[in-house]
Amino acid sequence: MRQAGRYLPEYRAVREKVDFLTLCKTPDLAAEVTIQPVDIIGVDAAIIFSDILVVPEAMGMQLVMEDGNGGPRFPAPIRSHAQIDALPVPDPHSKLKFVLDAIRTTRNNLNNKVPLIGFSGSPWTLATYMVEGKGTKNFRHIKELIFSYPKDAHFLLDKLARAVAAYLSAQIEAGAQAIQIFDTWGGVLAQEEFEEFSLQYIRRVLSLVKRSGAPAIIFCKDCGHSLEKIADSGADVVGLDWTIDIGKAREMVGSYVGLQGNLDPAMLYSTPERIEKGVQSILKKFGKGRGHIFNLGHGVLPDTPFENVKVFVNAVKKFSVQYH
Amino acid sequence: MRQAGRYLPEYRAVREKVDFLTLCKTPDLAAEVTIQPVDIIGVDAAIIFSDILVVPEAMGMQLVMEDGNGGPRFPAPIRSHAQIDALPVPDPHSKLKFVLDAIRTTRNNLNNKVPLIGFSGSPWTLATYMVEGKGTKNFRHIKELIFSYPKDAHFLLDKLARAVAAYLSAQIEAGAQAIQIFDTWGGVLAQEEFEEFSLQYIRRVLSLVKRSGAPAIIFCKDCGHSLEKIADSGADVVGLDWTIDIGKAREMVGSYVGLQGNLDPAMLYSTPERIEKGVQSILKKFGKGRGHIFNLGHGVLPDTPFENVKVFVNAVKKFSVQYH
Repeated sequence: MRQAGRYLPEYRAVREKVDFLTLCKTPDLAAEVTIQPVDIIGVDAAIIFSDILVVPEAMGMQLVMEDGNGGPRFPAPIRSHAQIDALPVPDPHSKLKFVLDAIRTTRNNLNNKVPLIGFSGSPWTLATYMVEGKGTKNFRHIKELIFSYPKDAHFLLDKLARAVAAYLSAQIEAGAQAIQIFDTWGGVLAQEEFEEFSLQYIRRVLSLVKRSGAPAIIFCKDCGHSLEKIADSGADVVGLDWTIDIGKAREMVGSYVGLQGNLDPAMLYSTPERIEKGVQSILKKFGKGRGHIFNLGHGVLPDTPFENVKVFVNAVKKFSVQYH
Repeated sequence: MRQAGRYLPEYRAVREKVDFLTLCKTPDLAAEVTIQPVDIIGVDAAIIFSDILVVPEAMGMQLVMEDGNGGPRFPAPIRSHAQIDALPVPDPHSKLKFVLDAIRTTRNNLNNKVPLIGFSGSPWTLATYMVEGKGTKNFRHIKELIFSYPKDAHFLLDKLARAVAAYLSAQIEAGAQAIQIFDTWGGVLAQEEFEEFSLQYIRRVLSLVKRSGAPAIIFCKDCGHSLEKIADSGADVVGLDWTIDIGKAREMVGSYVGLQGNLDPAMLYSTPERIEKGVQSILKKFGKGRGHIFNLGHGVLPDTPFENVKVFVNAVKKFSVQYH
């Protein structure tokens, strides 16, 4: 999950100078905030600082990021076949060069201290943002697209799969040592639609990416119902949100993929004692052996006390020794 | 799920005269909008028009319902042991008399045309609203309560379980022929916490309610991971959201509980053809036999075209004959 962020005073210091998108697009600064959690909280890997919505932006959609209220917006969301038809599959080496430069700079500055992870949104999750245009509770427009105009939905998702595959290939080429695909909105679909409109395109991406040995982590939020299919998608590692029991997940799929997760990020609002107990509980559920990447079950939440993130990382290091 | 609502012109006509809470608290009007969907769209049962938040209000919390922006609010949310301590377990016969009167009037006006369902929020879901005070994405305060002050959380949930049980018993006594418990927020918890802070108290409610033969429907949204435990809670029927495959659910628990659900309500934004196809697909997944109450997987969404709700109900009636 994104590691840099507002909970870090050092991150906030950088953000006082530049807005969010400028930070994403300034490789030196993106590299700086990418490395902050490695130095400050001692995580075992870095994940490049960026945003999944730079891909739709690279496809020509105007992206507005406003601090505080409402989150990111596309003022002209996709609502017609003509708009989908007009979307290019962008060349990441020109349109997303800033991410690749940030990866190169980060790798250089990390100097092999820890590995660097690249990432992208899944085609379905990107399509959801592009069609809704802003935050939504009901997913009216994207669902109208898949239910009433499934051919157009597939037309859009196919383009996105190719765009995401090219983007992830370029990230690996630039130095990313693993890639992660975030399917934030897979869980709003019924199982059949998840297969048809989300997982199918994740599989497609994985088949197209030039991996060069870089493992792929697939994280589909609220998709526990399809755990076996996700594990069978070509993923090397499956990310688990906190609602899945990692012990049961290991029983089901742990012999052929690694598992990443899965402490409830809201537990970091709690006390050091409770966080340590939570970490131990997950380690115990996974049990002894290899194949577990300890992580939160989603990103660090707003207003999480910085000290508690450190408590979490230290607890993982301390207690995992006897299991991993 | 709530059947009356903004999609019905006849409901909007009533709401032009009174605000939402006044509608809940005026038995004649509540009965009128409860019966509207029976007459207009032809559903096979009515569910009393009310809101789950009348219970915290009956416990002394000020409730603000504003149309349009932001949803319901408790301006003074629960944030201390002293506040929990001060909450009474209300006598529904005085504090929630308006609901009981609405049930009596509705039963009288329905004249046994279709059965009437009463309902309540689950203790966990009510606690979430009471502690957060307003809509939330991160559930910071309720999770801080369970993780940092679990004893206080149990103190609150125990009171709520007793309040809900008394309320549901009174609804049955007033004429409700079935009851439904809505656990809207069970799915934000990990499995262990779902058991400890939500399902345990649903079980408690079910053990305390004087059912007098009225069946209990339990609906926990996004809790597919605990389907077997929910089915084993004392429920007669388990409500399924649309992310669960009803065929698999029937295999797992269908021999000892009925299943209610589970069309994605967003499908009603689509075309009549697609809605009919969706209905047939769910009927086919459940298969032939008894024990299925067809329903949406959640409430009717805002801006759903009225005609499509009718298409849905008619499709269920038409296609279910060969299965049920």
